[in-house]
Amino acid sequence: MEIEFIRALRKRLPKSDQLAVGPGDDAAILQRDGSVVTCDLLCEGTHFSLANDSPLRIGRKALAVNLSDLAAMAAEPVAAFLAVALPRPDTEIAEPLLEGMLPLAQQFELAIAGGDTNVWDGPLVVSITLIGRCPHQPLLRSGAQPGDQLLVTGTFGGSRLGKQFDFSPRVNEALQLQGDRLLHAGIDCSDGLALDASRLGEESGCGVAIDLSAVPISEAAREMASQDPKRSPLEHALGDGEDFELLLAVPPNAATELLATQPLKTTLTRIGSFIEKSGLWREETEKLVPLPTTGYEH
Amino acid sequence: MEIEFIRALRKRLPKSDQLAVGPGDDAAILQRDGSVVTCDLLCEGTHFSLANDSPLRIGRKALAVNLSDLAAMAAEPVAAFLAVALPRPDTEIAEPLLEGMLPLAQQFELAIAGGDTNVWDGPLVVSITLIGRCPHQPLLRSGAQPGDQLLVTGTFGGSRLGKQFDFSPRVNEALQLQGDRLLHAGIDCSDGLALDASRLGEESGCGVAIDLSAVPISEAAREMASQDPKRSPLEHALGDGEDFELLLAVPPNAATELLATQPLKTTLTRIGSFIEKSGLWREETEKLVPLPTTGYEH
Repeated sequence: MEIEFIRALRKRLPKSDQLAVGPGDDAAILQRDGSVVTCDLLCEGTHFSLANDSPLRIGRKALAVNLSDLAAMAAEPVAAFLAVALPRPDTEIAEPLLEGMLPLAQQFELAIAGGDTNVWDGPLVVSITLIGRCPHQPLLRSGAQPGDQLLVTGTFGGSRLGKQFDFSPRVNEALQLQGDRLLHAGIDCSDGLALDASRLGEESGCGVAIDLSAVPISEAAREMASQDPKRSPLEHALGDGEDFELLLAVPPNAATELLATQPLKTTLTRIGSFIEKSGLWREETEKLVPLPTTGYEH
Repeated sequence: MEIEFIRALRKRLPKSDQLAVGPGDDAAILQRDGSVVTCDLLCEGTHFSLANDSPLRIGRKALAVNLSDLAAMAAEPVAAFLAVALPRPDTEIAEPLLEGMLPLAQQFELAIAGGDTNVWDGPLVVSITLIGRCPHQPLLRSGAQPGDQLLVTGTFGGSRLGKQFDFSPRVNEALQLQGDRLLHAGIDCSDGLALDASRLGEESGCGVAIDLSAVPISEAAREMASQDPKRSPLEHALGDGEDFELLLAVPPNAATELLATQPLKTTLTRIGSFIEKSGLWREETEKLVPLPTTGYEH
């Protein structure tokens, strides 16, 4: 939704000493015990369509988007709480919704710990709150410094062709890199590479320059561009969103090392750097050219 | 919703050593740090109607029902996470929804810590996950013993006339009694006094006998009965639900003491006792007569 409006709402929230990290990052962190908490609600027509997408895939996605938020904090999952509004009379979809979550719950050793089941005359809504913990320092959006390199996992664009449901939350990748103290800041790419990169810069008080020739473009982005030439593969990669890859701010030496050794199961790619001048830019040898922050604003 | 169906779903959940208390009580408790977590989703047409109820009251209720679940665990609130699906084009209701929560958040010193804001073409949905902690032993549904007395806070019935929105979550009452180690078990009354009392017995592996003449009937229950004589004030008290009072299993000596001293700001009333024979019964001098478990099954 319109980001100014969410900011206005956020300003209405009183400061609380219960929070080590408050609203505005990928998840909140509680002061008392360091619990990392994130909450995402998925609804029919916006995040899925029951006409096209099976309840199994919808259930998986609902848990996976929350896991991606924990990944962006370098947190390991502990427990998920599930609230659903089931459309009458199709209440039997509750079971495949839950089934769709179980493999991910098992993979990441998280408990599906409870929730609330409602039946109503509206469309399907699935809301998940996920609680995790940080075995290392939490990874925030706000730690990037000018000179840091912008590294990303995986490839971007065209997630509508399938990845928006089938993506792998990069939980283990973030934990591994953060455990080695290699990261300054991070965010997961849910709303579009350009938009989320600009957020990472903004929250860190610096700017981001992207080398457009280096952006790893997915096969799906090329396929969508070939079907409809109005948008190029690169435009899909920059603006489609729901890639659920990690965007990471990495100090130069660590970045060089990571790019050479590629220690993760997924490829790390350098696509730009953090700069003093705020805003989102194309990285050129001679001058900076502004880059539109394409992406999906909820 | 249909309780057998929820039980079937619950059986699908793998056991997890992440949980000290799993699905089936008023809230879950995490093994790692004792966090108490509850989650309630409210939707248009079931829990409120935007045509009749202001967003302020809806927001208050969404937080208050979760606070009542923490009360039923004798937990103190820490942080709330809010996920909403806002009906297009009425997105401006987000602000009064939040405003409605702030006084309760301040009263109970809890942080509104984040969440997820969506806009869609469906009706309003408000989902809140509330995290708390137990300063004393957690209050469970499963600790009642035959011979315990069934005590309740406040009065019952007719909550549709206003209390379903304006009730006071009994957080401080539960904390005070649990701090004095006076309780064996507890539940909050959301779905109806008879139904929730029967749940308390069932989860404790015993039965409940209710003295119908002792049930504290609200003014609202009498008013509703006077408007429509098909249901008596007592029937309203037993079956209406959304009273959000506490039902407590208290050992006999402690119950006598509590009833004499009335240490809470709200009146405690004895309305029955726990017995060996399972089921819900009318408490008679000579014999037990079955009592229907009236109430609202989600």
